Amino acid sequence: MKFELVATDGAARAGRLTTAHGVVETPIFMPVGTHATVKALGPDDLRAAGAQIVLANTYHLFLRPGHDLVKELGGLHRFMGWDGAILTDSGGFQVFSLAKLRKITEAGAEFRSSVDGSSHFLSPEIAVEVQQALGADIIHPLDECLAYPATREATERSLALTLRWAARSKRAHAAGATGQALFGIVQGGTDEGLRSEAARATVDMGFDGYAIGGMAVGEPKPMMYDLTALVVGLLPSNQPRYLMGVGKPEDLVASVARGVDMFDCVLPTRNARNGHLFTRFGDVRIRNAVHRTVNHPLDDTCECYTCRHFSRAYLHHLQRVNEILGARLITIHNLHYSPALAAGLRRAIDDDRLQAFAAAFAADRARGTGPDG
Amino acid sequence: MKFELVATDGAARAGRLTTAHGVVETPIFMPVGTHATVKALGPDDLRAAGAQIVLANTYHLFLRPGHDLVKELGGLHRFMGWDGAILTDSGGFQVFSLAKLRKITEAGAEFRSSVDGSSHFLSPEIAVEVQQALGADIIHPLDECLAYPATREATERSLALTLRWAARSKRAHAAGATGQALFGIVQGGTDEGLRSEAARATVDMGFDGYAIGGMAVGEPKPMMYDLTALVVGLLPSNQPRYLMGVGKPEDLVASVARGVDMFDCVLPTRNARNGHLFTRFGDVRIRNAVHRTVNHPLDDTCECYTCRHFSRAYLHHLQRVNEILGARLITIHNLHYSPALAAGLRRAIDDDRLQAFAAAFAADRARGTGPDG
Repeated sequence: MKFELVATDGAARAGRLTTAHGVVETPIFMPVGTHATVKALGPDDLRAAGAQIVLANTYHLFLRPGHDLVKELGGLHRFMGWDGAILTDSGGFQVFSLAKLRKITEAGAEFRSSVDGSSHFLSPEIAVEVQQALGADIIHPLDECLAYPATREATERSLALTLRWAARSKRAHAAGATGQALFGIVQGGTDEGLRSEAARATVDMGFDGYAIGGMAVGEPKPMMYDLTALVVGLLPSNQPRYLMGVGKPEDLVASVARGVDMFDCVLPTRNARNGHLFTRFGDVRIRNAVHRTVNHPLDDTCECYTCRHFSRAYLHHLQRVNEILGARLITIHNLHYSPALAAGLRRAIDDDRLQAFAAAFAADRARGTGPDG
Repeated sequence: MKFELVATDGAARAGRLTTAHGVVETPIFMPVGTHATVKALGPDDLRAAGAQIVLANTYHLFLRPGHDLVKELGGLHRFMGWDGAILTDSGGFQVFSLAKLRKITEAGAEFRSSVDGSSHFLSPEIAVEVQQALGADIIHPLDECLAYPATREATERSLALTLRWAARSKRAHAAGATGQALFGIVQGGTDEGLRSEAARATVDMGFDGYAIGGMAVGEPKPMMYDLTALVVGLLPSNQPRYLMGVGKPEDLVASVARGVDMFDCVLPTRNARNGHLFTRFGDVRIRNAVHRTVNHPLDDTCECYTCRHFSRAYLHHLQRVNEILGARLITIHNLHYSPALAAGLRRAIDDDRLQAFAAAFAADRARGTGPDG
């Protein structure tokens, strides 16, 4: 993997990440493909949406269909028919948010499956092995994800474990020689001192890029932005930075301005299935009765398939009758919106006009979608 | 609407139906778009599947979003973004199969909505008015659908009502002058005498085409085929014939051989969502464990998007984890299969080799999908 900086504007950067599965132009938004599919979309739809890289969840694929089977079938790219880049998380976040009866020891995480209650064990070494079998372009070390809020003592203890696991992951990854990039994950909770310590210690170990974990878990927005800026300032400028689980439009803009290159978030896809859309002129809840008779698109300025072909009234109807096409068309819109926003940020950085872009973005979003919206 | 016979082979016919929304080459399979969407697919997918005409359900659209709103929004074609032909049924079948507390009088059908229990009334005149508002290319008169089995007396009484309603529908349609084609529906249950009487009386009234209703409701297959042949023999040869609700592959072939031109059925789409696929070499239940590790497509000879890009193992996985993409990819396959079968029948009729085609079809289907299937 190669990362080049193309342009900067303040702390913000435009870059090119070259992977074995194509070039990823940063800033980039990565759609989430939990079970080796971005919900409601196929790989052709992802290409049409401008996706260059998708995220898949190690935890989910470890449970179903199993990493050994995916490997036997030729790896994740072939399995899901996606020839672009893939990033896998380590499974840590899901072990903490989804799994039942988990028990954390120095060795790793024992847990029961959220699907069928069966017992499983993930260690740093196993998490790397699973991700090597899946064959993503970018993989991550197993980390412990703290709930928010946490005491300083709990955060210190957790960070120390995450760092020891990171060192083990790095050794396991080096032994594998798969050519996959391994990102480090900076944890440290909401304490500035611990976040700084986490960033320095992770960078000292040396990874191919750096993820910032444990954000957008309930902490106030200003705190998230400040901690992001703090961590970013301690990361090497010649490597990519990935803010995990963050994807609201405003957060994308704010975090890119602070020097983040990569994002993932389930919101564009999950919200879509609930009829919640992101648009240039603010968010839209398409199930609201006000859209029932509206014979124009969600956003006249949007170039996605959904906005080019369908009225709000039709999308409202599809959602009200729970048709799959409703989930699909709104997912198409939301997954056009987020990559397009990232691409807009990239062009603004290239042209040294990020501040003006961010101001116009905020004004547009605040405008609302008009009397019909 | 214009219908031309292009070729015949025994009782089977190849034809061209010219509508205000394009040409429909018969024999044709019509995907069912209940709520103004063929489940899991958009209009672009329908085109890619070779669909030339889709069916929409008057009953469902009458309830949600309402025919007046669809009219106000520019009609069904514009609403659902489909510029091909559309056929609507009369709502009769759903009033009898879905609605609650229905009460049939000479005037029409009073019923409570299967969605929210609200009260509604459909008369022959209202059913025509609803279909005029929706704006389909081909519409149908309200009919009474008998449950199978029914006594001769019940069938006689029901048929007489259906015929009186047909006459009223015809007058209402003539008064509307919308340019839509109105098909007659031949009922008559399983009694050959009543079926013949129904066919003669319906033809005497004079419609733009003839639907055969009340089939595939539980009667034995040979009976369905015989009754179809009987009715078809009494219909004018220069008008299209539509066998309502029939769409299993074997039934398509058998009915085309008996002179049917048009079909609709929810099976290709409903089965798809349950992981039940039609293939050249027999049906496949993709959820079965045998497909878990199969790294080749459903059918190597199929040209659909799904078969060109994905393994059985991936489809099996998507179904097991209940991903929307699973429903979508299998729907794409099934809705490629049925129109392709109809197109194959058409070419065979054109070449005067229907019998050989039917024999090869039966042999292929009986072969099964091999040790991996």
